[in-house]
Amino acid sequence: MSDVRPILDMNAFDGKSSAPGGHAQSDLLDRRLRNIGAASVLFYRDPIEMVSASGCWMTAADGTSYLDFYNNVPSVGHCHPRVVGAMAEQAARLNINSRYLHQTVETYLDRLKATFPDHLENIVLTCSGSEANDLAIRIAQRATGARGIIVTESAYHGNTSAVTEISPSAIKRGGLPDHVVAVPPPSKQAYGDNVAAGFADAVYLAITTLQDRGYGVAALIVDSIFSSDGVFSNPKGFLRLAVAVMQRAGGLFIADEVQPGFARTGDAFWGFSRHDVAPDIVSMGKPMGNGFPMAGIAVRPELLAAFCEDVGYFNTFAASPVAAATGLAVLDVIRDEDLQNNAAVCGAYLREGLQHLAEMDARITDIRGAGLFMGVDLSANGDPSEPGGQLVGDVINAMRRHRVLIGAAGKYGQTLKIRPPLCLTRSEVDFFIEALGKSLRTCG
Amino acid sequence: MSDVRPILDMNAFDGKSSAPGGHAQSDLLDRRLRNIGAASVLFYRDPIEMVSASGCWMTAADGTSYLDFYNNVPSVGHCHPRVVGAMAEQAARLNINSRYLHQTVETYLDRLKATFPDHLENIVLTCSGSEANDLAIRIAQRATGARGIIVTESAYHGNTSAVTEISPSAIKRGGLPDHVVAVPPPSKQAYGDNVAAGFADAVYLAITTLQDRGYGVAALIVDSIFSSDGVFSNPKGFLRLAVAVMQRAGGLFIADEVQPGFARTGDAFWGFSRHDVAPDIVSMGKPMGNGFPMAGIAVRPELLAAFCEDVGYFNTFAASPVAAATGLAVLDVIRDEDLQNNAAVCGAYLREGLQHLAEMDARITDIRGAGLFMGVDLSANGDPSEPGGQLVGDVINAMRRHRVLIGAAGKYGQTLKIRPPLCLTRSEVDFFIEALGKSLRTCG
Repeated sequence: MSDVRPILDMNAFDGKSSAPGGHAQSDLLDRRLRNIGAASVLFYRDPIEMVSASGCWMTAADGTSYLDFYNNVPSVGHCHPRVVGAMAEQAARLNINSRYLHQTVETYLDRLKATFPDHLENIVLTCSGSEANDLAIRIAQRATGARGIIVTESAYHGNTSAVTEISPSAIKRGGLPDHVVAVPPPSKQAYGDNVAAGFADAVYLAITTLQDRGYGVAALIVDSIFSSDGVFSNPKGFLRLAVAVMQRAGGLFIADEVQPGFARTGDAFWGFSRHDVAPDIVSMGKPMGNGFPMAGIAVRPELLAAFCEDVGYFNTFAASPVAAATGLAVLDVIRDEDLQNNAAVCGAYLREGLQHLAEMDARITDIRGAGLFMGVDLSANGDPSEPGGQLVGDVINAMRRHRVLIGAAGKYGQTLKIRPPLCLTRSEVDFFIEALGKSLRTCG
Repeated sequence: MSDVRPILDMNAFDGKSSAPGGHAQSDLLDRRLRNIGAASVLFYRDPIEMVSASGCWMTAADGTSYLDFYNNVPSVGHCHPRVVGAMAEQAARLNINSRYLHQTVETYLDRLKATFPDHLENIVLTCSGSEANDLAIRIAQRATGARGIIVTESAYHGNTSAVTEISPSAIKRGGLPDHVVAVPPPSKQAYGDNVAAGFADAVYLAITTLQDRGYGVAALIVDSIFSSDGVFSNPKGFLRLAVAVMQRAGGLFIADEVQPGFARTGDAFWGFSRHDVAPDIVSMGKPMGNGFPMAGIAVRPELLAAFCEDVGYFNTFAASPVAAATGLAVLDVIRDEDLQNNAAVCGAYLREGLQHLAEMDARITDIRGAGLFMGVDLSANGDPSEPGGQLVGDVINAMRRHRVLIGAAGKYGQTLKIRPPLCLTRSEVDFFIEALGKSLRTCG
């Protein structure tokens, strides 16, 4: 792991740069560093003070407005009035734990379940994707009687003790624990032209490693669009073989939909659907409440029942009427504003724009993704085998000057990670492409 | 552990009782069991469908209103308009992660820090108390280089993998892992008249056990009012000796304030204050956002810095402007409505009422607690050494018929756990005492 630059640190304020513009903001930064200390994580060499947001735009304290291509939490648009209204209305009426019955909670769970394959009959709500993945891992370990987990090598699955252990990208020092094996992400660099077979072979090898170590295999868990690994979506169906190998070995397949879920990939509501696989557990989070802290898992009922024989699971804040009303409004907005289709249509238009840029600039070495989740590889000399992490960092900071917020992914930070709100318009795509073109021209 | 009835199951709907009144609610219960499956946890033999709440009262679908002595999340009152207003206003303006600077976030953190001793300089916000305790444990293990954790024998510290391991009350089958040792709670039954010395001796013994097992000692973690153990608050300062023993052995003291914190104990803002101890880490949660999912830790900065050398910690939903605005409104309401003082005054009045009942009914064998967090032991034959878990269960269900919602605590569920909202009035105390008197007369 020591050669991997933690993705969490990409583009972070390092505490050494000059303070951002003006006395007020310098004071704010000082307070921030005093308050949160070493756990403070800020974007940009000069952090931005934000004051408001709407649709795909955020406005800073100095009045500058930024097009947000970074956040995938406010997925139906920042501060969507219908979502905020539903949350506020329910919070004023009743906000309690799930030990009482409530109509909206069951209405929401019914609606959410309808988005999943029939075999995922149960939903357990949590507060965060971290809690969801933590629970999913425990259910898998209980169901299989095994401990071994297989992940990809720049995976991120959350911040609890158990899921940090399966998140190579969060580990700064030391390696993975023995019961976790990381395989290279499903890239051409790693596996050549037959990604499906290569990735399945890697999973098979990891299974034998875990069996040799005496842990057995509990689960293969992947973000179904491999966000932090660099965004890998094609060819459709490439995951199927690896999942079959895992399930045949007695392990489960957990689809982590915290990033790709809720219509972002355009072709389906969930990222795993494009691979025609049947997950044993699906975890979900970030965009689920458009900013209200909520997440959860969908799970085969017999797996959940076995887990609940050993241990009581209750989540105080989760599955409240407010979470349900908020989550329901998100589902309504996705449907009523046709956002899945917009993700497909706008995503295709975005891809065209990126391809047009790539024709003019050989440093763009690959364009991947689905819908409004895309990854664009950069390389300073145009050689895909020489990842351009530094160039990506420079472009991200240049993009900020052109009023676009965007992040990085990949083992070497070589990938621009593109995930704007799903309500994106064609003119906003144009704004982004123009800013990226200008930024590339001034970098490197 | 096998003799311990999990507290999470006390008073739970068992899935076998007759469905609650009417076709509509029966349908709702069916949907609930289908949706959440084995992880469904419901109160009462006949679960209640709730529709609204205000102050200390909740209203069911059939129009019945209930006095809520159970919830300690809506601590400043259900659906407090000032808290809901602050949340809604901020959610309509900006709701993003903490990678950008925001005035309200730092204002909140400054205000929150001012409630702690000076040495706890850093705050890390999370979504839930579980995430807070999970983080606290990891920080302690990193700081000490040891793994061993000492808890009390009916402790509950949350639902993640790592904190379920230190929550004996959540474990239904099997024992604690080897790196966790549970000591009896600070009760007279366990330690006689000198609880401070007895509890410190038990902690010392646990330390040597963990050292003998090769784990060393990372932390003693206790809920500073021992909620799930049965509510133990007196004599003031009894924790001091045990904390000194732990810190002298090189371990940390973590005060879990998820239950007693935010002015509930009346005499102080935090439960640990009554013991005149200096925690190395404090975790907080439930009442922090009055229902908005937020929690966190306060921590010595050098401990946090060491932890952050090894691993990136970032929490997507936590420390958002909405969490900050909501948390700030909670602090404002506690101050402006003088709720800490009300907890002290109303708590004293409540204690008088309970003592009056105890004079008339020998089955009340002990009354403990501070402010508006109290525990009342029941024993069917008035013998404190024969805990009345069944009687408590009967009383809880009788209280429901008298329109009061209340729960249980303690290893055998022998303790009525009393924790109403802090805005409780004297007339509501009267209502409660009358209902408890009637319920006791009809039970056993």
